[in-house]
Amino acid sequence: MTKVLVLHGPNLNLLGRREPEVYGKMTLAEIDARLRALGAELQVAVETFQSNHEGELIDKLQQTDASAVVINPGALTHYSIALRDAIAAVGLPTVEVHLSNIYRREEFRHHSVIAPVAAGQISGFGAESYLLGLRAAVALVKKEA
Amino acid sequence: MTKVLVLHGPNLNLLGRREPEVYGKMTLAEIDARLRALGAELQVAVETFQSNHEGELIDKLQQTDASAVVINPGALTHYSIALRDAIAAVGLPTVEVHLSNIYRREEFRHHSVIAPVAAGQISGFGAESYLLGLRAAVALVKKEA
Amino acid sequence: MTKVLVLHGPNLNLLGRREPEVYGKMTLAEIDARLRALGAELQVAVETFQSNHEGELIDKLQQTDASAVVINPGALTHYSIALRDAIAAVGLPTVEVHLSNIYRREEFRHHSVIAPVAAGQISGFGAESYLLGLRAAVALVKKEA
Amino acid sequence: MTKVLVLHGPNLNLLGRREPEVYGKMTLAEIDARLRALGAELQVAVETFQSNHEGELIDKLQQTDASAVVINPGALTHYSIALRDAIAAVGLPTVEVHLSNIYRREEFRHHSVIAPVAAGQISGFGAESYLLGLRAAVALVKKEA
Amino acid sequence: MTKVLVLHGPNLNLLGRREPEVYGKMTLAEIDARLRALGAELQVAVETFQSNHEGELIDKLQQTDASAVVINPGALTHYSIALRDAIAAVGLPTVEVHLSNIYRREEFRHHSVIAPVAAGQISGFGAESYLLGLRAAVALVKKEA
Amino acid sequence: MTKVLVLHGPNLNLLGRREPEVYGKMTLAEIDARLRALGAELQVAVETFQSNHEGELIDKLQQTDASAVVINPGALTHYSIALRDAIAAVGLPTVEVHLSNIYRREEFRHHSVIAPVAAGQISGFGAESYLLGLRAAVALVKKEA
Amino acid sequence: MTKVLVLHGPNLNLLGRREPEVYGKMTLAEIDARLRALGAELQVAVETFQSNHEGELIDKLQQTDASAVVINPGALTHYSIALRDAIAAVGLPTVEVHLSNIYRREEFRHHSVIAPVAAGQISGFGAESYLLGLRAAVALVKKEA
Amino acid sequence: MTKVLVLHGPNLNLLGRREPEVYGKMTLAEIDARLRALGAELQVAVETFQSNHEGELIDKLQQTDASAVVINPGALTHYSIALRDAIAAVGLPTVEVHLSNIYRREEFRHHSVIAPVAAGQISGFGAESYLLGLRAAVALVKKEA
Amino acid sequence: MTKVLVLHGPNLNLLGRREPEVYGKMTLAEIDARLRALGAELQVAVETFQSNHEGELIDKLQQTDASAVVINPGALTHYSIALRDAIAAVGLPTVEVHLSNIYRREEFRHHSVIAPVAAGQISGFGAESYLLGLRAAVALVKKEA
Amino acid sequence: MTKVLVLHGPNLNLLGRREPEVYGKMTLAEIDARLRALGAELQVAVETFQSNHEGELIDKLQQTDASAVVINPGALTHYSIALRDAIAAVGLPTVEVHLSNIYRREEFRHHSVIAPVAAGQISGFGAESYLLGLRAAVALVKKEA
Amino acid sequence: MTKVLVLHGPNLNLLGRREPEVYGKMTLAEIDARLRALGAELQVAVETFQSNHEGELIDKLQQTDASAVVINPGALTHYSIALRDAIAAVGLPTVEVHLSNIYRREEFRHHSVIAPVAAGQISGFGAESYLLGLRAAVALVKKEA
Amino acid sequence: MTKVLVLHGPNLNLLGRREPEVYGKMTLAEIDARLRALGAELQVAVETFQSNHEGELIDKLQQTDASAVVINPGALTHYSIALRDAIAAVGLPTVEVHLSNIYRREEFRHHSVIAPVAAGQISGFGAESYLLGLRAAVALVKKEA
Repeated sequence: MTKVLVLHGPNLNLLGRREPEVYGKMTLAEIDARLRALGAELQVAVETFQSNHEGELIDKLQQTDASAVVINPGALTHYSIALRDAIAAVGLPTVEVHLSNIYRREEFRHHSVIAPVAAGQISGFGAESYLLGLRAAVALVKKEA
Repeated sequence: MTKVLVLHGPNLNLLGRREPEVYGKMTLAEIDARLRALGAELQVAVETFQSNHEGELIDKLQQTDASAVVINPGALTHYSIALRDAIAAVGLPTVEVHLSNIYRREEFRHHSVIAPVAAGQISGFGAESYLLGLRAAVALVKKEA
Repeated sequence: MTKVLVLHGPNLNLLGRREPEVYGKMTLAEIDARLRALGAELQVAVETFQSNHEGELIDKLQQTDASAVVINPGALTHYSIALRDAIAAVGLPTVEVHLSNIYRREEFRHHSVIAPVAAGQISGFGAESYLLGLRAAVALVKKEA
Repeated sequence: MTKVLVLHGPNLNLLGRREPEVYGKMTLAEIDARLRALGAELQVAVETFQSNHEGELIDKLQQTDASAVVINPGALTHYSIALRDAIAAVGLPTVEVHLSNIYRREEFRHHSVIAPVAAGQISGFGAESYLLGLRAAVALVKKEA
Repeated sequence: MTKVLVLHGPNLNLLGRREPEVYGKMTLAEIDARLRALGAELQVAVETFQSNHEGELIDKLQQTDASAVVINPGALTHYSIALRDAIAAVGLPTVEVHLSNIYRREEFRHHSVIAPVAAGQISGFGAESYLLGLRAAVALVKKEA
Repeated sequence: MTKVLVLHGPNLNLLGRREPEVYGKMTLAEIDARLRALGAELQVAVETFQSNHEGELIDKLQQTDASAVVINPGALTHYSIALRDAIAAVGLPTVEVHLSNIYRREEFRHHSVIAPVAAGQISGFGAESYLLGLRAAVALVKKEA
Repeated sequence: MTKVLVLHGPNLNLLGRREPEVYGKMTLAEIDARLRALGAELQVAVETFQSNHEGELIDKLQQTDASAVVINPGALTHYSIALRDAIAAVGLPTVEVHLSNIYRREEFRHHSVIAPVAAGQISGFGAESYLLGLRAAVALVKKEA
Repeated sequence: MTKVLVLHGPNLNLLGRREPEVYGKMTLAEIDARLRALGAELQVAVETFQSNHEGELIDKLQQTDASAVVINPGALTHYSIALRDAIAAVGLPTVEVHLSNIYRREEFRHHSVIAPVAAGQISGFGAESYLLGLRAAVALVKKEA
Repeated sequence: MTKVLVLHGPNLNLLGRREPEVYGKMTLAEIDARLRALGAELQVAVETFQSNHEGELIDKLQQTDASAVVINPGALTHYSIALRDAIAAVGLPTVEVHLSNIYRREEFRHHSVIAPVAAGQISGFGAESYLLGLRAAVALVKKEA
Repeated sequence: MTKVLVLHGPNLNLLGRREPEVYGKMTLAEIDARLRALGAELQVAVETFQSNHEGELIDKLQQTDASAVVINPGALTHYSIALRDAIAAVGLPTVEVHLSNIYRREEFRHHSVIAPVAAGQISGFGAESYLLGLRAAVALVKKEA
Repeated sequence: MTKVLVLHGPNLNLLGRREPEVYGKMTLAEIDARLRALGAELQVAVETFQSNHEGELIDKLQQTDASAVVINPGALTHYSIALRDAIAAVGLPTVEVHLSNIYRREEFRHHSVIAPVAAGQISGFGAESYLLGLRAAVALVKKEA
Repeated sequence: MTKVLVLHGPNLNLLGRREPEVYGKMTLAEIDARLRALGAELQVAVETFQSNHEGELIDKLQQTDASAVVINPGALTHYSIALRDAIAAVGLPTVEVHLSNIYRREEFRHHSVIAPVAAGQISGFGAESYLLGLRAAVALVKKEA
């Protein structure tokens, strides 16, 4: 069965408690549950992983047996060239997602070092961004198959 | 019945014939058909409109009776502040979509003047970007309702 | 009798309905009426014209028989070099007006490509900007006469 | 009776003698006289003050009992953040005026640190800029009243 | 018989009347006549078209049956990415021409968004630029044949 | 009893041995001791923590039960948006301190990504910066109480 | 007895009345009183001086017999190279203080031309910034002694 | 008989052998022959000169008795202000030519320090650029005569 | 008898005592004496004036009856557009001098807003800069006479 | 016996499998073997260490007993000021190496924050870069001895 | 027998006498001798050439019969696009070397226009840079063979 | 007897004939004669040398037996880092002179790469710049003696 790895970057474990006017009220556990439910509907396995450590996210990416990746890199979006290189090296179709519309926020959040190595980007739809991202990842896997 | 307006900017009428290695082989008529089919599935009406004229796109936006907008502004993405102002003025939830990953292309295509007034952005999944965009628009309408 | 042409750029037809906290509550028709009234007082004819199409504004400028121009270029202020060239080519004394103080808004609205070819600029006084602009245009015509 | 304070920045005492091709032939005394005449017509008192000292302009602003300010900051336009802070601190409706079209001159004159704290800006109409500025200031006072 | 399409952008209809110290005294009709005469000599048909509307220029490009294009984009040179994309999409060998030497003019005229998709650029020789451009276009068609 | 968390970023464990001409001769243990002594005087508990790992600093911040934070982010000051987001998310009053005057050092050290989410910043007083920072943190807690 | 000179730049005489949401409600007289009280506690004399005139601040600095300086340069922070040179020339240990966190305000307030010649900087703690600054100044004098 | 000097800058002696995918297969000798042939047709003498030394190109320009210059400055295009000054000093009508479309190449090749002192520029047509350049030079000489 | 006005900007009254490794050991009184001695030799009167107040330097410039000016604007060199405008308005031949080579110092000292309105600039020769400046001023007066 | 520490940054554990057209086919184990062999020849011990975690690389550097360091920081080259500070703090002669020529790659890879604290840099020779780096490190140790 | 050409750019003939704290005490003749000795050991012929003339270095490169090049372009590193084009045109594997670590020096020395056309770069090891460069060149020749 | 070397850069051999409105009517021979006359008065020998070749100017500098240098680098002022390095390497006190005020001309002429290695700079006084430069050079030699 096809597997999709969903990675959550730093501070996303605080979702629901943290600045809800920016990030919404849903917790990470609830988002993960909705992702697994949609995965079931789309007939793919969904594995989720969160870390505040750049190195752990890179380790996870290098070791995964998934066929595609959905990643919300959080703040690493804007400077982690190491994470970018890991995505490029691993070579899996990767969908970058963001809860908020990063183009409406501070100037420094408009630039993503991840985007050029991702297949595509989805931002601004809250938890829905993840679900659309999972659909996109599944579509990418099908196109490759 | 809820209606979603889908706007296609300049040169998108050439889709399928134009630089297929960048934009894919599907024609605009085929994309519009898939959008209407998905609209039927999601129980929303879908109206589509393409123009090479910035002014006509603005006129259309100002006169629509739709509840949400999906827009691929094409090249206008990067400089049409008039189109941006129209979106802000009309005040409908708007999803910006792009066929290609604009962050992998020329530097000047990395910046969207539309993004800060859109609800969110989806780019890089070819025709699938439109379908995900329609799903996102429907979700936005539901959230507002 | 001296004539002054007043041009309104894209989206100004929405005035009064659109983002009133930024642009005020007066409609374009009301502004045009006040301009004509002031024109009567100052003994000049006032012709007004609005379009969302850059090309139509340029055509109008090229064909006018007015002695001076008052223009609110709207979003075209920031990028329409074609409109700028039309103003320079036509050679009429031209007053650039803005409803809002463009220097208090987004960074990209601080720069006007029109300003260097206008006689002067008036911004920030709401509908009053147009009336002051008409007075300025009439003063320019007198000085030339 | 309503009072409007008109402030003239550095070197404006040289008006009429100084670079007349840029600033015109009218002296500051003549401009002040025209301002008082228009003030009489509009039924407001007009007080005028010129200084080459940034600090004296700030002191004057802090101590005035006027209801609005018309200011031509001269060269201070481009760097006097202290003058800007004084305008913001005093909180009176303030109209920034310039004799010449600052957008047609040297690059460094295109930027005003005063503009974001002024109600609006009028530039390019010679002595007429002051008269339009006085009208604008009176309109602002009425709107507040 | 081979056909070359010659496109003239905004304000070029004013040629001869407009700022002759910059653009020369020849009218557009005279230039078109000289182009047709040279076309006859070089045994190619020459079709000419002018518009102040970006959208009309794009429509024309998309619908032409010519084998090559000579285009003077006028002010659109500096910002019309939509026109650029149309040239790239249509895929005809295209020669960009300018009457004046754009590198001697204002800073913002030094940059052409069209140049990277044109085969080559000719600027600075007045009406002669068009004639050299036609020769270049014919040479490009021959090389492809 | 009120608790203040003091965080030390990468390489600060080398204090006293490392480049003493820049950072002084006091070791981190000595600074921690002085902080605890001042804490006793001000009647607050002081917990200190050092790590060379960005992720560990973020984890610590997310899990603390302190009422305020004093942080010397070391080199992370200049690029760790993840640390910045953690401070913003946790929402505790936070004082940013630096041993050296960062504005006297290399250009890239003049910019702090942490500063906009800190309550305030103290830099340049060596170990004294920490003690002033603790006083500031205590004052902030009192103001909130 | 050691003396510390406290300098207040332009507009700080308006404290308490001016934009209290940015600068707090305490007046300058109250701050000066608290500084003298803390001075008594720390056994140093405190002299305070405010001016809206850059030149008077420089004159004061050149003529002082104090052993250290605490300065809130106000708007001069961002451009007064003359004040900077005076601080460097006089050579006294100088502490730069700001009431507000200048890194949370407008972009142009992020840069201090004073910082590189100050011993250190304290910003963001309201009136508390001055008190921490006085402590820092006293510590600097002791270290030199 | 009118004479046109054709100057070739550094590395152009390698033409035909060097990177033919960028510069074409024709050798410099062949280009010179075609230029002389066209010169005969247009009834002008053509002198050609190549050097890898900036100083020799300047010496040649200063000593020529030609009536016009065609120059391909090669890499000197982008930095030789000395060559630029020589062209301006000599005052002959000068046509700048390039084999390749410099606007399609590396960013640093988009800028020509020569262009502002040339009459015009022709780029992108391979060896044809030189022939068009010769025609342009002859036209310039005629216009001056 | 011809008179030359020598102006010294902020902090130059500290010369000799202030940072002698940068500015030398000679006091301002000694420099003024040497200037008067050279003036006697060259048969011109020399008046000298120092102020820490920008406004006083402008007043002095506006009121002088000298035929030429030598000015060391000190720190005002880098931002005082008001001083620049005064020099331009007064219209006397003006020589800008600097004790130190400003191009060897901090980046922000490389730019002079005064230079474009001065006849010429002399920097880097210590007190000698003033003497060369006086010679230059006298030469300028002679050329005009 | 002298020891040299060789550090490999993030993603270098994928060498040989990852993008071989950029990084070559040799695995990290093979490179380490070749380094140890050359170490034996040059009579130095070689210790190698790879991590995807910035913090672990810093810990390793702080704890080493080697006499010199060879480091390929991978993506950390471009932003890890913490790693830079660790190198500066530890004070060992350090050689920065890169497999690929970073000046031929994306713009953001041209800048190394590590370079200014390294003794020197070697890039572009594939696995050979490491061997040359080891030779350079040994030469540096000898020079210090 | 394989030959390696070693090129030394402007001012390198002064080595040993010139700024020894930056460039070391070894003369160019001594470096050339060490290069020839290492060449003998590695069984390659080494030809060396120094010139202060950009043109002579380009001529030498175009005429060489060597199999690889080691070049220290000196100051030409930073602006000689002509030298860069010569290296690209000649197509030999080329190693760029620098005595000093150019990333520790003035900002303008951080950028090399040569680097993108070189196989790799070695900087910072004094005369050792040349010897490592020769080893690298020999390795490149072997890899190609 | 002390000797001063006067170097003239590219195109200065055209002085008097070339753009006299910028550079004046005096020829280089006349300037050299005036320099020698002033040299006689000041009791120093004056040697002059002009070249259009950067390399020849560097060779001359390296071989001179003069005690000081006066140099007008012409266009090389703005890019010849090789000439700059030669001046630094030779170590003679060097005075940079310019006929015109380079700060009144094109933007790219405002920056001198020579200035940071010169003792000082004199610009804007026409031929007088050279004479003042010779005086400055003699003063520098005396100070060193």
